[in-house]
Amino acid sequence: MHRTHTCGELRIEDKEKQITLSGWVQRIRDKGGLIWIDLRDRYGITQLLLEEGRTDAATIKMVRELGREFVIKANGTVIERVSKNPNIPTGEIEIDLKSVEILNSSKTPPFTIEDNTDGGDELRMKYRYLDLRRQPLRRNLELRNRLSIETRKYLDSEKFFEIETPYLIKSTPEGARDFVVPSRMNEGQFYALPQSPQTFKQLLMVAGYDRYYQLVKCFRDEDLRADRQPEFTQIDCEMAFVEQDDILNTFEGMVRYLFKTVKGVDIPELPRMEYADAMKFYGSDKPDIRFGMKFVELNDVTKNKGFKIFDEAELVVGINADGCANYSRKQLDKLVDFVRKPQIGAKGLVYVKYNEDGSFKSSVDKFYSQDDLKEWADKLGSKPGDLMLVLSGETNKVRKQLSELRLEMGNRLELRDPDVFASLWVVDFPLLEWDEDSERYHAMHHPFTSPKPEDIEMLDSKPGEVRANAYDLVINGTEIGGGSIRIHDRDLQKLMFKHLGFSEEEAQEQFGFLLNAFEFGAPPHGGIALGFDRLVALFGGSDSIRDFIAFPKNNSGRDVMIDSPSKIATEQLDELKLMVKK
Amino acid sequence: MHRTHTCGELRIEDKEKQITLSGWVQRIRDKGGLIWIDLRDRYGITQLLLEEGRTDAATIKMVRELGREFVIKANGTVIERVSKNPNIPTGEIEIDLKSVEILNSSKTPPFTIEDNTDGGDELRMKYRYLDLRRQPLRRNLELRNRLSIETRKYLDSEKFFEIETPYLIKSTPEGARDFVVPSRMNEGQFYALPQSPQTFKQLLMVAGYDRYYQLVKCFRDEDLRADRQPEFTQIDCEMAFVEQDDILNTFEGMVRYLFKTVKGVDIPELPRMEYADAMKFYGSDKPDIRFGMKFVELNDVTKNKGFKIFDEAELVVGINADGCANYSRKQLDKLVDFVRKPQIGAKGLVYVKYNEDGSFKSSVDKFYSQDDLKEWADKLGSKPGDLMLVLSGETNKVRKQLSELRLEMGNRLELRDPDVFASLWVVDFPLLEWDEDSERYHAMHHPFTSPKPEDIEMLDSKPGEVRANAYDLVINGTEIGGGSIRIHDRDLQKLMFKHLGFSEEEAQEQFGFLLNAFEFGAPPHGGIALGFDRLVALFGGSDSIRDFIAFPKNNSGRDVMIDSPSKIATEQLDELKLMVKK
Repeated sequence: MHRTHTCGELRIEDKEKQITLSGWVQRIRDKGGLIWIDLRDRYGITQLLLEEGRTDAATIKMVRELGREFVIKANGTVIERVSKNPNIPTGEIEIDLKSVEILNSSKTPPFTIEDNTDGGDELRMKYRYLDLRRQPLRRNLELRNRLSIETRKYLDSEKFFEIETPYLIKSTPEGARDFVVPSRMNEGQFYALPQSPQTFKQLLMVAGYDRYYQLVKCFRDEDLRADRQPEFTQIDCEMAFVEQDDILNTFEGMVRYLFKTVKGVDIPELPRMEYADAMKFYGSDKPDIRFGMKFVELNDVTKNKGFKIFDEAELVVGINADGCANYSRKQLDKLVDFVRKPQIGAKGLVYVKYNEDGSFKSSVDKFYSQDDLKEWADKLGSKPGDLMLVLSGETNKVRKQLSELRLEMGNRLELRDPDVFASLWVVDFPLLEWDEDSERYHAMHHPFTSPKPEDIEMLDSKPGEVRANAYDLVINGTEIGGGSIRIHDRDLQKLMFKHLGFSEEEAQEQFGFLLNAFEFGAPPHGGIALGFDRLVALFGGSDSIRDFIAFPKNNSGRDVMIDSPSKIATEQLDELKLMVKK
Repeated sequence: MHRTHTCGELRIEDKEKQITLSGWVQRIRDKGGLIWIDLRDRYGITQLLLEEGRTDAATIKMVRELGREFVIKANGTVIERVSKNPNIPTGEIEIDLKSVEILNSSKTPPFTIEDNTDGGDELRMKYRYLDLRRQPLRRNLELRNRLSIETRKYLDSEKFFEIETPYLIKSTPEGARDFVVPSRMNEGQFYALPQSPQTFKQLLMVAGYDRYYQLVKCFRDEDLRADRQPEFTQIDCEMAFVEQDDILNTFEGMVRYLFKTVKGVDIPELPRMEYADAMKFYGSDKPDIRFGMKFVELNDVTKNKGFKIFDEAELVVGINADGCANYSRKQLDKLVDFVRKPQIGAKGLVYVKYNEDGSFKSSVDKFYSQDDLKEWADKLGSKPGDLMLVLSGETNKVRKQLSELRLEMGNRLELRDPDVFASLWVVDFPLLEWDEDSERYHAMHHPFTSPKPEDIEMLDSKPGEVRANAYDLVINGTEIGGGSIRIHDRDLQKLMFKHLGFSEEEAQEQFGFLLNAFEFGAPPHGGIALGFDRLVALFGGSDSIRDFIAFPKNNSGRDVMIDSPSKIATEQLDELKLMVKK
């Protein structure tokens, strides 16, 4: 037997018990006459004690040869510690060591196994199995496990069935790029890995399963940005005989349940914000509403005062930064630099200080009088001591720029506390969005999203204004999930495909099975998919999903630990009837 | 709102409630003055009633145009039925229909949506979403959902963490054939889909996670036999600081828990049978022990009586079939035909009837006296009225043949009741098995399985006799799972690779990350993987895993519903730098 207890288990009540522990040597302190070992496993740390004269000499000798991360089995007696450690649950006891057995030795790890390690990113990825020994990562994976269990518990209690959908499916050109899998038994043909189980969950609704969910891996062969993974996990859900409110209520219930059971936090009912308002007041379809600083449009008070930039702008829009009138020249310059960064792309930034004495100082004093600026202040709700920041330009662009500036100011003013959670639904998304490259409309969510019935008539005349029964769940400025009420009518689905530029043949070839299924009694249905990696990261108070995945890939899609992807044997290629082009 | 209740919910206590139901039209009976509709959803069936004169004429007209599988929304009042149906939970009530709305029409389905459908296999696979509407399949997927929930509940209570391992991993030539995934970002390189998360779960043990599990899809590109799927689901588990007994006890606990909570069946403690005994007494490493009919070796009582076939045979071995002495010539001929089938491959079958009068009648009376045959009977424990069946030949082959015959007799005698469950552990598997094709030893389980310490010295001299710390879970003659205590010592692992014919470079290239990990304090560990599809099928009393998978592939690995695999666009191939050979 390797152990009678774990390293997190023993308490003062266990005093005088003969026990066996197994684990890793975290630390050895050798004070000559006394030696202490911190023995670690998943459950905690227990201190082992050796004393010259009392502990067997051979054991002392053996212990002196141990290194960090050796795996040992320790026998001894639970005794009360002289100097207790109140910071750990086992801190009142230690083990009077009788004997020790080395279960495995260890080379010195390439970085320290501590909360704050000295290892760089690449090194820790290569030795991921050592990085995973560190407490912060262990806590992340523990949190992930707990969240998945509670997610399933909630959905099970709501009568959802978890149903596994296939991983070897069919490639479709719509959406992101598929990973494909050559079929050996069907020469020259390929499976694709699912970007999501979208069509299958809709078929399950057609099949009458009523409430489906799945925690499922999805795959997208996209050029990776920081913190995107080629494989990621989704909480995928679908319900039949529902309207939008039924879905929002069910999943609002889930989110609140998870916050309550996993974080112990009661979150209030989720506000619902129309997409148009989110864009107007936050310049973003995923507003961070932990703080205000809402956009105020200033066209009517800024135009026709001789300032050409504003006069020519489609939109002049500002935010008010509480208590920032005392920003120095240097601080203001930094803000100007920020909005001018290529990824933000503003040409400049107008600022107005509302001084404590009631006067204004702005970067456009040449064009605007004190009275003019007072008008701005009234609109923006500024008070003495505040700073007004104003951008102008083409509506969509300037909104995006001001959104970035707003988040930057939120960071500077420490209004984005990761321990505070502000969730909302963004609803009434546009059905279609214009794609500059292909010069046609694309589905904003996916081609199965239903338009609002009252907007269908605009599909031909004003396609960009058609709203969808689509919604996103946003927490702390991050899109955690999104979904829609689906089309369940074959004719409407065909119409949508037409508007998305599919020929009838293409639609039939790619989605024929779904169109066919719609002929046999498809119920009204809708659903949602939540990004599980991101949800866990959010619960863990982090932006980096990679720290919440056991074995992530790096930004080139490589697993540097196992060195994958890699070349495969010529025989494998031959069997697949494939050739790699030089 | 689409419904106030589901179709399985209303009871006599709901009498006089105004309700709304939505669902599928299962059946319409039109008796002129009275019309009944069976409305179906996942939760059950509720009867709707229309009466001429009472029900609105327009509603009656509309109902008369409904077809099978139309989706409707029905409003009405709960009333007590005149003739109650005790077979369904809603059988005491019906709905006095007020109005109906057609949510979707349906073409006539290509087969009936009934427990016993008239649809053939191919047709039902093509319209899987309709086949899934049938109750037997719905119950199967419901069972699958329940089993997965209870599996997780048990493992969570035993402190296992569910940890997701990656799907895009690295191809290794060992074991079955990998499915590969070309990488666009790493030209000419490929990921592989996991045949199992074996190395990752071992790394999680090295990382100190102590107890890991995952319900996970695995992939094998094998030539499909009936009831094999290219993707299948595994309950994958690993534990650190354990010996074989710890694992057997933990998973025996799980199996008994699942039988208890899901089937309501108390199963006894699982017997443990050595592999050598399983082969000797049942001719199989997955014996069906729902019935006896154990093998008895008869060399000592059959040799040297002038019967050349037995004299020259390595092994003469028989079974006793209770009460079959009255088998007719025709029945016996059928048994002879059975063992002579090419897939069984015996040359012939010797039978001995132990007649009720105490005399013997055998197919070898020319060589054996009544006294000789009495000796056989004593060995086999035969009594008057029984039938002895004896095969001979090379040990391994004849055991396999007699095993098939034993199962066939079990079927004929109805000793293999799918509602009776007989589970056991088969332990002490050989470490290596000889492969005729490659003329070398292969790992019987996989290359990470540890040999029994006392047998290691035979690795060079008698490799075939080295036993492993490996075990299988067998229920009703089906291998439900298997596992082993792993090697956690780098040198022993290297030695194993050597014996499996890996050069040092090959071992390093393919498993270097694991060998490296073993240098940093790998704990003793072991695990098990259970075939989840097969476990569910067994619980459902069926041999066919396909009926327990929502969207299975056919025997050519095709999904005939979505028509996959399929050709992909030339641009996709170009991006991957791949060419399909003509």
